[in-house]
Amino acid sequence: MPEVLFEIDQSKSFYAQEVNCHNRWHPDIPPVATVRPGTEFRLECREWFDGTIGNNDSAQDVRDVDISMVHPLSGPVSVEGAAPGDLLVVDILELGPTPQEQGPAAGQGWGYTGIFARENGGGFLTDHFPDAYKAVWDFHGQMATSRHLPGVRFTGITHPGLIGTAPSHALLERWNTREAQLIATDPEAVPPLALPPEEHNALMGGLPEAEARAAARTGARTAPPRENGGNQDIKNLSRGSRVFLPVFVEGGKLSVGDLHFSQGDGEITFCGAIEMGGYIDLRVDLIKGGMEKFAVQDNPVFIPGNVEPRYSEFLTFVGISVDEKGDQRYLDSQLAYKRACLNAIDYLTKFGYSPEQAYLLLGAAPVEGRFSGVVDIPNACATLYLPTAIFDFDVRPSASGPRAVDRGRCATT
Amino acid sequence: MPEVLFEIDQSKSFYAQEVNCHNRWHPDIPPVATVRPGTEFRLECREWFDGTIGNNDSAQDVRDVDISMVHPLSGPVSVEGAAPGDLLVVDILELGPTPQEQGPAAGQGWGYTGIFARENGGGFLTDHFPDAYKAVWDFHGQMATSRHLPGVRFTGITHPGLIGTAPSHALLERWNTREAQLIATDPEAVPPLALPPEEHNALMGGLPEAEARAAARTGARTAPPRENGGNQDIKNLSRGSRVFLPVFVEGGKLSVGDLHFSQGDGEITFCGAIEMGGYIDLRVDLIKGGMEKFAVQDNPVFIPGNVEPRYSEFLTFVGISVDEKGDQRYLDSQLAYKRACLNAIDYLTKFGYSPEQAYLLLGAAPVEGRFSGVVDIPNACATLYLPTAIFDFDVRPSASGPRAVDRGRCATT
Amino acid sequence: MPEVLFEIDQSKSFYAQEVNCHNRWHPDIPPVATVRPGTEFRLECREWFDGTIGNNDSAQDVRDVDISMVHPLSGPVSVEGAAPGDLLVVDILELGPTPQEQGPAAGQGWGYTGIFARENGGGFLTDHFPDAYKAVWDFHGQMATSRHLPGVRFTGITHPGLIGTAPSHALLERWNTREAQLIATDPEAVPPLALPPEEHNALMGGLPEAEARAAARTGARTAPPRENGGNQDIKNLSRGSRVFLPVFVEGGKLSVGDLHFSQGDGEITFCGAIEMGGYIDLRVDLIKGGMEKFAVQDNPVFIPGNVEPRYSEFLTFVGISVDEKGDQRYLDSQLAYKRACLNAIDYLTKFGYSPEQAYLLLGAAPVEGRFSGVVDIPNACATLYLPTAIFDFDVRPSASGPRAVDRGRCATT
Amino acid sequence: MPEVLFEIDQSKSFYAQEVNCHNRWHPDIPPVATVRPGTEFRLECREWFDGTIGNNDSAQDVRDVDISMVHPLSGPVSVEGAAPGDLLVVDILELGPTPQEQGPAAGQGWGYTGIFARENGGGFLTDHFPDAYKAVWDFHGQMATSRHLPGVRFTGITHPGLIGTAPSHALLERWNTREAQLIATDPEAVPPLALPPEEHNALMGGLPEAEARAAARTGARTAPPRENGGNQDIKNLSRGSRVFLPVFVEGGKLSVGDLHFSQGDGEITFCGAIEMGGYIDLRVDLIKGGMEKFAVQDNPVFIPGNVEPRYSEFLTFVGISVDEKGDQRYLDSQLAYKRACLNAIDYLTKFGYSPEQAYLLLGAAPVEGRFSGVVDIPNACATLYLPTAIFDFDVRPSASGPRAVDRGRCATT
Repeated sequence: MPEVLFEIDQSKSFYAQEVNCHNRWHPDIPPVATVRPGTEFRLECREWFDGTIGNNDSAQDVRDVDISMVHPLSGPVSVEGAAPGDLLVVDILELGPTPQEQGPAAGQGWGYTGIFARENGGGFLTDHFPDAYKAVWDFHGQMATSRHLPGVRFTGITHPGLIGTAPSHALLERWNTREAQLIATDPEAVPPLALPPEEHNALMGGLPEAEARAAARTGARTAPPRENGGNQDIKNLSRGSRVFLPVFVEGGKLSVGDLHFSQGDGEITFCGAIEMGGYIDLRVDLIKGGMEKFAVQDNPVFIPGNVEPRYSEFLTFVGISVDEKGDQRYLDSQLAYKRACLNAIDYLTKFGYSPEQAYLLLGAAPVEGRFSGVVDIPNACATLYLPTAIFDFDVRPSASGPRAVDRGRCATT
Repeated sequence: MPEVLFEIDQSKSFYAQEVNCHNRWHPDIPPVATVRPGTEFRLECREWFDGTIGNNDSAQDVRDVDISMVHPLSGPVSVEGAAPGDLLVVDILELGPTPQEQGPAAGQGWGYTGIFARENGGGFLTDHFPDAYKAVWDFHGQMATSRHLPGVRFTGITHPGLIGTAPSHALLERWNTREAQLIATDPEAVPPLALPPEEHNALMGGLPEAEARAAARTGARTAPPRENGGNQDIKNLSRGSRVFLPVFVEGGKLSVGDLHFSQGDGEITFCGAIEMGGYIDLRVDLIKGGMEKFAVQDNPVFIPGNVEPRYSEFLTFVGISVDEKGDQRYLDSQLAYKRACLNAIDYLTKFGYSPEQAYLLLGAAPVEGRFSGVVDIPNACATLYLPTAIFDFDVRPSASGPRAVDRGRCATT
Repeated sequence: MPEVLFEIDQSKSFYAQEVNCHNRWHPDIPPVATVRPGTEFRLECREWFDGTIGNNDSAQDVRDVDISMVHPLSGPVSVEGAAPGDLLVVDILELGPTPQEQGPAAGQGWGYTGIFARENGGGFLTDHFPDAYKAVWDFHGQMATSRHLPGVRFTGITHPGLIGTAPSHALLERWNTREAQLIATDPEAVPPLALPPEEHNALMGGLPEAEARAAARTGARTAPPRENGGNQDIKNLSRGSRVFLPVFVEGGKLSVGDLHFSQGDGEITFCGAIEMGGYIDLRVDLIKGGMEKFAVQDNPVFIPGNVEPRYSEFLTFVGISVDEKGDQRYLDSQLAYKRACLNAIDYLTKFGYSPEQAYLLLGAAPVEGRFSGVVDIPNACATLYLPTAIFDFDVRPSASGPRAVDRGRCATT
Repeated sequence: MPEVLFEIDQSKSFYAQEVNCHNRWHPDIPPVATVRPGTEFRLECREWFDGTIGNNDSAQDVRDVDISMVHPLSGPVSVEGAAPGDLLVVDILELGPTPQEQGPAAGQGWGYTGIFARENGGGFLTDHFPDAYKAVWDFHGQMATSRHLPGVRFTGITHPGLIGTAPSHALLERWNTREAQLIATDPEAVPPLALPPEEHNALMGGLPEAEARAAARTGARTAPPRENGGNQDIKNLSRGSRVFLPVFVEGGKLSVGDLHFSQGDGEITFCGAIEMGGYIDLRVDLIKGGMEKFAVQDNPVFIPGNVEPRYSEFLTFVGISVDEKGDQRYLDSQLAYKRACLNAIDYLTKFGYSPEQAYLLLGAAPVEGRFSGVVDIPNACATLYLPTAIFDFDVRPSASGPRAVDRGRCATT
């Protein structure tokens, strides 16, 4: 087991850990450790809502979470010799849920998928699902099952939802400017268009208090993916992957968080994936001057690992960019994928699931979401691939019709 | 070999075939044949620009094509007993390029990928590539290589770009209305927002001339995918797939066209994929009342085949919904995928390819395009997976830097 | 379509073709064509029993075949510049059943799997199945079904059972010597231990008659795989594979035959696989001095293609080297695999198949046979992987027990 | 984390643990725990040579091990209600190396592959490699590298080499009888033909001392696989697998051991695979009367997991049943696989590896060994598939020849 550079007591809040914690992006947050290229190390991670979501049958906790506390990040770790313009090579050697029992937080043998209420963050299908829901998943080694989704059992595609380097001051300012401009176009939008810097609940790592307060006023929120990687929520950035991250500050300052036991493409429920606390083992290396050499400047590149769960049969749903009211939109893949997801949900209800259960399933199971046609004016075409083997019944269309049975219900408010 | 229900002379234009041809969607076009459920049959297909694109080193033909002639469709074939509300089950048993030499059209051992000029249709990256380009691919069994893209060799993921049933009159009217409304928002857009019905070059199958002329005035253009399937350009709808298509008219009236030797997700160059004439072997069956039973009403569903080319290592590019000028957009996967594609193109130029070559490659090779995060406000995250084994050099980032050599050029005007 | 260098009229016997035919290995058989390295070409192939097995419900034809006529070989093709010590690089670009209807021989939309009677060749399990049986398979594109094996449907793993270069005179003599020595240990064995040269039914290609007769007296029979490749029956030497064959004579003299629509590992029924006539497209190249450079001297090496059918769930049977009477044998993988096959057959009978049907299935479907432990004295351990998705029922063990129904019967005498 | 039913102190010998330990098969060994069907639990495992093999550069420890001490087994665990004739359903939920540092034994971040000397057990190629050798592997999450095999890096296919139920008295007697008969055919063979019961070093679990001594005189050695499963060394019995084991005694009495970080098909070096101590998480269930219902009587069946490392390109070596002296043998797959392994070793030496290094590699890396032809008299044909991506150089044949460099050496005596 590699050395632990960031140690978490999973029985305590992220605000009460011994180690310096952060939940904002800021170049001035000092590293918790500095390692040489070639080093392997472990970071322990707190689940993204800091243990406030319970293993129970009510979604009130999901309804009431305070999104200003996300994401608890582990790190930053600096790498000797890393300088702006380099590529930081990060191997994701291993990751998993919290190995030992330590209090009741997610990751102790279970995780959860939530649907945010429209008033508290919303999600991909918030117009159709404005209220809060939850499914609790039990871990069986690499498999997950849920009492809230009977008839389903799948292998998790474990990955960090969030991994990234620290932005430079200039890059941070660029983020804040462009996001503020977007917010200004509709400041009262519900859910909001973007999340501006927010002092409340901000943790700024090892920065002295006065500096921390100042930094919190400009520190970038961690919800979106950006040039530094960040909350990309790429399910295939799984165990065994090698990531090439742009370096914007001395040392690179690598942070990680938001571990997922599994996720469907899109993480459509937002409070999505199967959330868990746990650990991640990394190895770091450098490609000096790699950003320019390989033109990797605006976003990371990566090579996925080779142990993703192997499913070979899929039922595929198609969506096009005509909205639910029948209005034609112009080449809009976001809408096309939404329609594909809604088509899948409608389909699954024919087998006895409630729409909420189906929505939760698509956020958590290893479904593939693909861009199919993006140029066939005026309709983008998106496809969602649902592995048929995750069901303990035959989910394919057949002349005998779907076998609808009572499939229980998910956690509601 | 199953019976040929639609026979093409590949040495002649689609406008000069003996069989009744069509290139518009219309419920009144009579079937070329009627078969029982359970029947297997073959349709021969003309490539999507009817042989006007040549196996040469100039892209002038791509620049000058008349888009009103697409797509030459094979069929329609009616199925006995198919009635509105049913699902038509179509097995794609086999498909491939034209087996025997018969004139010089694409499909006779070769195919092409084109980039449309902005003034003539454009494409996904038309702001960056406003001119016409072309790559010619040679077929070696299931493998493709191109003198316009040296260093690349891959297995095609053969599929019909277009497969669908006939719309009902009501559905056709809905299409025309919604698309006209979209066009009305910017009638002068270049490229246009959508393609309205167009009598010029319309072929209406076996309809008598007067009826044909009338029908051509409302017949839907074939460019976009719609509720009936149509030009979905789903690369994974490959050999061995089973498609469940909604039936809107008596007999279902199945049409197929736009065969692709290979395609990348998105078919981003528009005159994209690797276009070819050829044949397709199908088997049809019915699920009576299946649209309601399985809630398959707005789009088809399908089960992909199990002989897609197997690549296991990918270099993945990430894109987010910040546009090329740095402006923040709100959860826009279409833009995010565009940025991922541009990132991949920039990357490949470091190895000696021109941007046009890289663009053509992404349209033709079996690259995967995935929705990654679609909810992390304000940035959608899209990923493009490039199989590393299609290159005869090491395309992965390394400390030694990329090996840039002269990689020739594609066909230009 | 590449040029056809070996053209077969599938309505005629191999003994009545216009082209010079051979069915023995001999260095003196002249090439039917000579090509340059880099050339692509097509060879048409006759099925391994020359069309004598019929699409019917009797196995009398299998019982009565004359094994001295196998294998009808296509070629030999010489490659310019190929010299002893080189490696001949052969790309299997494509292969498939006979494209056009031309008489009733296997390959015209159907193929067969046979079990030889003990008196006429036998097979892997001849002690258990001493009589002749047959299953006829119908081709549906890449899929196969059989009226003799209801409930089964799978994608073929198409490949040439036999591909090889000509032996040198010295090598041929070595073969004849060592095989004669083996036969001498039990000359009356039924089935025989090996097949010595046999003039009856010998075809020696373009050799003048007197020379042909002489050559037939030493020409090696084609049943076994040897240093030149030959009848390896490797199911994974499928479409897209690249084979590196040792060159023993000037030109290499490449011959091909025994096309299989599909096969299970081991081709256990001997008259096995799914036999068909058809075509194969090849590309040849050379690695000068490659045998020594790469130590490829005793057998070919190859890189399998990447379009094998993808099955992801298997039911695995285990066998060890204790024989059916309970006697312990020492590290005998041949026996261990036999026991694994027998275990699989016993299992399948619980679902309603006859033992003969199950045996035929294991010979034809894409089952994997693996060496597991080969050192754990005294028991070798072999495993047989049966893809569960090829059955239209659930073939896995379950608490509710197997669902045995009437599954008809195969062709018998 | 499931409850630990068998707890090991990895800093202590198997002979000094607190828990009752066993290393022989015997029906009378009492269970360490009894669980209900449906229970999940963890067993900790000692590596197969009890920590006597060191992380160093000498193979003297491998040369001198005492094989009478293998295998340290964890369990037995009884299942409530299990009775002779049932099938015990065992899900392998998870397994891995020892999580926490606890002394220097294999499993603490590293493992080893050994080649036994002929005088001390030998191995598959002992005629070619009569001396002892060793390679030490470092674990990097799921990846392994070795200072003794530079240029190689692969993902482990983690599995228990040994899993089985207790034999009945009758079955045990049958084993002892048949193995004694084999030994009697050549009692002085080196290595021996089989391993008879041996009191020296025997551990008989919780049996009182007198009974233990008696039981040790008939307790079956654990080296071979048998009807109860046992030391099957099936690499694909990996994480996520479901095994169906015959039950021969009340409670079933499940034992597990010999954890492997990785293994090639055949485990050809005998002291093979990558050996490690660690843990395994299991879930048990029952199919009452399953042995008869499913005809699973002579050996287990299993369904492999779906997270095996995914390699898609292989270099394949062929072997036939002609021995190294050129003598023809009759349909002998054991020999054919040996020849394929020797061919692979010869090939790899051309790239700079010593034969010993290549042998060690084939025992440890996830190579596939397949039965290809088993009926083509007189030659069996076996194939060995070597994943090309495990090398950091191009291992495929090419016109430029192999790039031989100094690749160091393995541990020797």
